[in-house]
Amino acid sequence: MPKVRPTIDITILKGEKGETGPKGLLGPEGKAGQPGRRGLNGWKGQKGQLGPPGNSCKQYYVAFSVGRRKPLHSSDYYQHVTFDTEFVNLYEHFNMFTGKFFCYVAGVYFFNLNVHTWNYKETYLHIMKNDSQAAILYSQPSERSIMQSQSLMLDLLEGDEVWVRMFKRERENAIYSEESDVYITFNGHLIKPAVE
Amino acid sequence: MPKVRPTIDITILKGEKGETGPKGLLGPEGKAGQPGRRGLNGWKGQKGQLGPPGNSCKQYYVAFSVGRRKPLHSSDYYQHVTFDTEFVNLYEHFNMFTGKFFCYVAGVYFFNLNVHTWNYKETYLHIMKNDSQAAILYSQPSERSIMQSQSLMLDLLEGDEVWVRMFKRERENAIYSEESDVYITFNGHLIKPAVE
Amino acid sequence: MPKVRPTIDITILKGEKGETGPKGLLGPEGKAGQPGRRGLNGWKGQKGQLGPPGNSCKQYYVAFSVGRRKPLHSSDYYQHVTFDTEFVNLYEHFNMFTGKFFCYVAGVYFFNLNVHTWNYKETYLHIMKNDSQAAILYSQPSERSIMQSQSLMLDLLEGDEVWVRMFKRERENAIYSEESDVYITFNGHLIKPAVE
Repeated sequence: MPKVRPTIDITILKGEKGETGPKGLLGPEGKAGQPGRRGLNGWKGQKGQLGPPGNSCKQYYVAFSVGRRKPLHSSDYYQHVTFDTEFVNLYEHFNMFTGKFFCYVAGVYFFNLNVHTWNYKETYLHIMKNDSQAAILYSQPSERSIMQSQSLMLDLLEGDEVWVRMFKRERENAIYSEESDVYITFNGHLIKPAVE
Repeated sequence: MPKVRPTIDITILKGEKGETGPKGLLGPEGKAGQPGRRGLNGWKGQKGQLGPPGNSCKQYYVAFSVGRRKPLHSSDYYQHVTFDTEFVNLYEHFNMFTGKFFCYVAGVYFFNLNVHTWNYKETYLHIMKNDSQAAILYSQPSERSIMQSQSLMLDLLEGDEVWVRMFKRERENAIYSEESDVYITFNGHLIKPAVE
Repeated sequence: MPKVRPTIDITILKGEKGETGPKGLLGPEGKAGQPGRRGLNGWKGQKGQLGPPGNSCKQYYVAFSVGRRKPLHSSDYYQHVTFDTEFVNLYEHFNMFTGKFFCYVAGVYFFNLNVHTWNYKETYLHIMKNDSQAAILYSQPSERSIMQSQSLMLDLLEGDEVWVRMFKRERENAIYSEESDVYITFNGHLIKPAVE
């Protein structure tokens, strides 16, 4: 009988499977997230301030009213009638020293002159605009003394002057007034400024 | 001797531990960031435009123009010249009963008086401010009747009164007018209010 | 024969290597993204509102001042006194052709007339409002020529006309002036518009 070598199923002898390996390393950190969405728009700015008030037709006032208490007699030359009494003289546009109204505010003005005549003498005056006679106030001589008036408007430029001139002697001429009573008055006021 | 079956320490036969597992997967992407901060506020709006010129300015108007249709003769006393005809009397600042202009709006006023003389009589009037004579309107007597005028401006306070006074008799004096025709007029108007 | 202990290559009996370890854990979440960019600036604020109306307002100006350089004698009929010289004539409300002031702006007006008498002739004029005589300027005749004035205010409606009328002949009447000197003037200006 042949000798049979015993077969050993060695596998039953195989060791146990090794243990599972250790867990892998932690995965790498994910990428940073996307930037956030753009912030909301800012709030609308404040409403602008209220505009300033409209032009208040800046109103211009010019007015003078002067009187003379002393009589005046003509000389051989033209004479400038001056005044010694101020009823009204806003901002002193009427210059009491020169006796002339000086136009600081261009525009249309009303002027009015009142005088009292002198007995037996002529009354021969002009309302002057600079060196030109604008209108005359004239009265023939008489034994009776009376009031005499003239008025007109003039369109003046800055720097124009308006005043009263007594004519030079041809015949005697004069105007009357008294310390205690104003007979002679010269008035003017702005009616419309050139620049409104 | 008993036969000892050899003992095999089978554990030494156990397989090696497995390899470390693979690295984990990349982590997930991070969350999106927070929204950005709100934007800055917008710039403040521009200032509004200049307003339009005012529609109706507070403007002060004072004006009267009165007439007298009846003649007036002087008495032994000063006489107050009254008027019977209203051409213009805004807000009735001219009091037809007292015959005086009452100043409700302080300021500069222009006054103008026109009368007609009476034949052979003197014309002796004053434009009065309260109890003071501001300016005279005077004419010597004559056989001829004529117009006579005087004007001036006055700076009035509230409550001031302006009126016309006939001088008391020294010589006869009078002014002429007719029912059918106005010879005598008294006018006044505000030139500049004290408070603008 | 010596008994040989069989040699077993034990290694063949070693267990298999363990399984690869499990995959590592997912990596941690990425960091949050950066904050979003700041929002855009807000819109600019609205423009401010229009400012309030100005204090003062549309102002109306009406003014005329005309002169006459030619004398005028009465005829058998009423005569219209016309003028040949314009000192001031805003917007030509005084019609030099018709010789009348035409009221385009209703309101209160001041009118003033100055003339020079003619020797030995009467001076008989009226300031007319349309067909009505508003006030008279009258002087008896005399050998002396003088200035004569009249003034008044009138409340006019649009379309009203104001002018100067010379009385028709009863006695001779006339007014004097010269080419080189203005003796005769007629002035008017708006004191208060009906619509402010």
